[in-house]
Amino acid sequence: MSTQVGERVDWKKRKAEINEAKKQRKEAKLIKELDKQKEEEASEREQLEQSQSKKGRAYTVSVALPGSVLENAQSPELRTYLAGQIARACVVFCVDEIVVFDEQGEDVKSVEGEFKGVGKRGHACIQLARILQYLECPQYLRKCFFPKHPDLQYAGLLNPLDSPHHMRMDDESEYREGVVVDRTTKPGRGSLVNCGMRKEVRIDKQLKSGLRVTVHSQCVFPSPSESKVYKGTVVAPHVPRTEGGLYWGYSVRLASCLSAVFTESPYENGYDVTIGTSEKGSNIDQTTLSPFKHLLVVFGGLQGLEASVDTDQNLDVTDPSVLFDLYLNTCPSQGSRTIRTEEAILVSMAGLRQKITAAFSDVSNGLLKS
Amino acid sequence: MSTQVGERVDWKKRKAEINEAKKQRKEAKLIKELDKQKEEEASEREQLEQSQSKKGRAYTVSVALPGSVLENAQSPELRTYLAGQIARACVVFCVDEIVVFDEQGEDVKSVEGEFKGVGKRGHACIQLARILQYLECPQYLRKCFFPKHPDLQYAGLLNPLDSPHHMRMDDESEYREGVVVDRTTKPGRGSLVNCGMRKEVRIDKQLKSGLRVTVHSQCVFPSPSESKVYKGTVVAPHVPRTEGGLYWGYSVRLASCLSAVFTESPYENGYDVTIGTSEKGSNIDQTTLSPFKHLLVVFGGLQGLEASVDTDQNLDVTDPSVLFDLYLNTCPSQGSRTIRTEEAILVSMAGLRQKITAAFSDVSNGLLKS
Ligand SMILES: C[S@@+](CC[C@H](N)C(=O)[O-])C[C@H]1O[C@@H](n2cnc3c(N)ncnc32)[C@H](O)[C@@H]1O
Ligand SMILES: C[S@@+](CC[C@H](N)C(=O)[O-])C[C@H]1O[C@@H](n2cnc3c(N)ncnc32)[C@H](O)[C@@H]1O
Repeated sequence: MSTQVGERVDWKKRKAEINEAKKQRKEAKLIKELDKQKEEEASEREQLEQSQSKKGRAYTVSVALPGSVLENAQSPELRTYLAGQIARACVVFCVDEIVVFDEQGEDVKSVEGEFKGVGKRGHACIQLARILQYLECPQYLRKCFFPKHPDLQYAGLLNPLDSPHHMRMDDESEYREGVVVDRTTKPGRGSLVNCGMRKEVRIDKQLKSGLRVTVHSQCVFPSPSESKVYKGTVVAPHVPRTEGGLYWGYSVRLASCLSAVFTESPYENGYDVTIGTSEKGSNIDQTTLSPFKHLLVVFGGLQGLEASVDTDQNLDVTDPSVLFDLYLNTCPSQGSRTIRTEEAILVSMAGLRQKITAAFSDVSNGLLKS
Repeated sequence: MSTQVGERVDWKKRKAEINEAKKQRKEAKLIKELDKQKEEEASEREQLEQSQSKKGRAYTVSVALPGSVLENAQSPELRTYLAGQIARACVVFCVDEIVVFDEQGEDVKSVEGEFKGVGKRGHACIQLARILQYLECPQYLRKCFFPKHPDLQYAGLLNPLDSPHHMRMDDESEYREGVVVDRTTKPGRGSLVNCGMRKEVRIDKQLKSGLRVTVHSQCVFPSPSESKVYKGTVVAPHVPRTEGGLYWGYSVRLASCLSAVFTESPYENGYDVTIGTSEKGSNIDQTTLSPFKHLLVVFGGLQGLEASVDTDQNLDVTDPSVLFDLYLNTCPSQGSRTIRTEEAILVSMAGLRQKITAAFSDVSNGLLKS
């Protein structure tokens, strides 16, 4: 609507018109935004449905603890056994990464370390990391990757992890862990991999012998076939989890101090939810979790996370709780004055398991409802 | 209302009158029932409020497991350590009774047993029970109640329970565990009890020396006093729990088979809620608990509760689930093919702890609302 020349401008009317036009523009903008949002939601929903139909698990869970927990054991045998308890606790709850941090200023940059004799003080981070790696490795690959080492002197006492990627010869699976064997093959034909089956697997790539690889089969290993080898393709180690929805063991990382647990995360944007554990934390029963990409749960040693904070030169704080998104007491009304770290992992992860399940089932419910 | 002689009976009216009277009687009865119910509710509420103001805990939690779990250990040291893990798991979750049952037809009626050498096969129930009792006993009473015994050869490796009734010399508490000392006192003066403090306690009764007793002080032990002894009264062992709301350790019971766990309950009306645990059970996340008096949680050994049912001559069933009110998988989506019994206790009790808390806080809410 326009005003005609010569006519007296009806300012009141004019203002109303302008306001109306503004309102309409605003509405149009809102409608556009809404459409965009709906589109995004639809694509999110689609992604989720896809990932659910693929049964993949997109998120990861990491656990961190000080290597000093080993010093708490009363004999070399029990020191080894304790490392095994930690490995098993993490596997029971499908932990993807275990970070062993130094809270005593040992040098832990190299996994090799200097041998000071098993059971002696010190050397705890490296020994814990080595035993964790040893246990994680499928039995049929141990000869390859773990030559005799004094840290592993009592490995015979360790309880097996019995995780899905520890397969017996005839177990069926789409995925297998293997080692590239040392045998020359014709160029372009792909390397041979020992995956712990009766026959080797010819993969799609030429790789250096001795490399540990995750192999995928179009059919299911060990596929019935007349040929002398099975066929497979090499995939990234996360694929059994992200596409197959399988638990595929954990990686082990050493950190030179507590703060390095956070700053040296292998995930591009770090951990998006971090939890510290302490009897002085807030009650886990009153906590809910939101969906996350990479969760980190940190445990203290004999003296709690306070000690880990104290010895960390990069940290100015004294109260560990400020380092975490959540600082949780995972066992309110505990009947013992102290819970040991190896016990606290089982107790805490049992409490968190249910919160994690709820977080991700709420997402899918929420999205499907909207 | 009565009908007059000679008058014609109005049957219709009569019937209506009778019905009306019936209705009134019924209503009166209902009102009476309702009153009774309200009274009961009020007294329940009162009891609850009393118990809450006293901070007492009225309910108990029992855990049962087969002694055969010890056979799963790889050395005599680890056998001892495993028993200690079980004790600690139960203490962390304030378990009041541990029942060790025989699933292999050993004779376990006597805790004395015949010594076959620690670490050898067999003898598992008795050894487990003995180590559990040893650990439960406050350190200052062990000399009295646990003379040297081969079953306790590696007791030095055991981690302490650190429960509230394990007090150091100067710890303050209304209650203390003690042993009646072997010293004649004047008749009517009451026996002397060693409660692990700098002075002994004179109790209100004359008791046989060597008896283990729970002692209560009007003030708090060790009360500042000039006299040569403290004063106390002997109370039932449940009083620190039911009146003080304290966790006061567990009792140990041997059962000759799985069914005897149920039938030989020390509680007058047995266990009112029973839970069996198995990876084949239903998902704990979909379970809620109602308030109970005496909860029993039963764990299986290496071969699960199926094996315990199989070897029990008193049981005709093969499916263990029919024995329990609830049969629960306490670790859905476990990352290891099997969870060991000592791990399952921590994991399951962590899951149940939250359900128990919810059960009893719902009651108080519910009653206060009504
Ligand atoms: C032996 S405890 C440390 C006790 C230490 N005195 C303290 O005050 O924290 C070892 C670790 O177990 C974990 N932990 C023990 N009790 C816990 C609880 N109730 N809730 C959460 N974590 C706990 C914590 O990670 C703790 O650092
Ligand atoms: C080594 S497991 C027994 C495994 C046995 N193969 C079976 O099928 O039950 C020992 C005990 O740990 C407990 N347990 C293991 N996994 C469990 C789970 N996911 N939920 C509840 N209890 C479990 C049960 O009491 C079980 O009898």
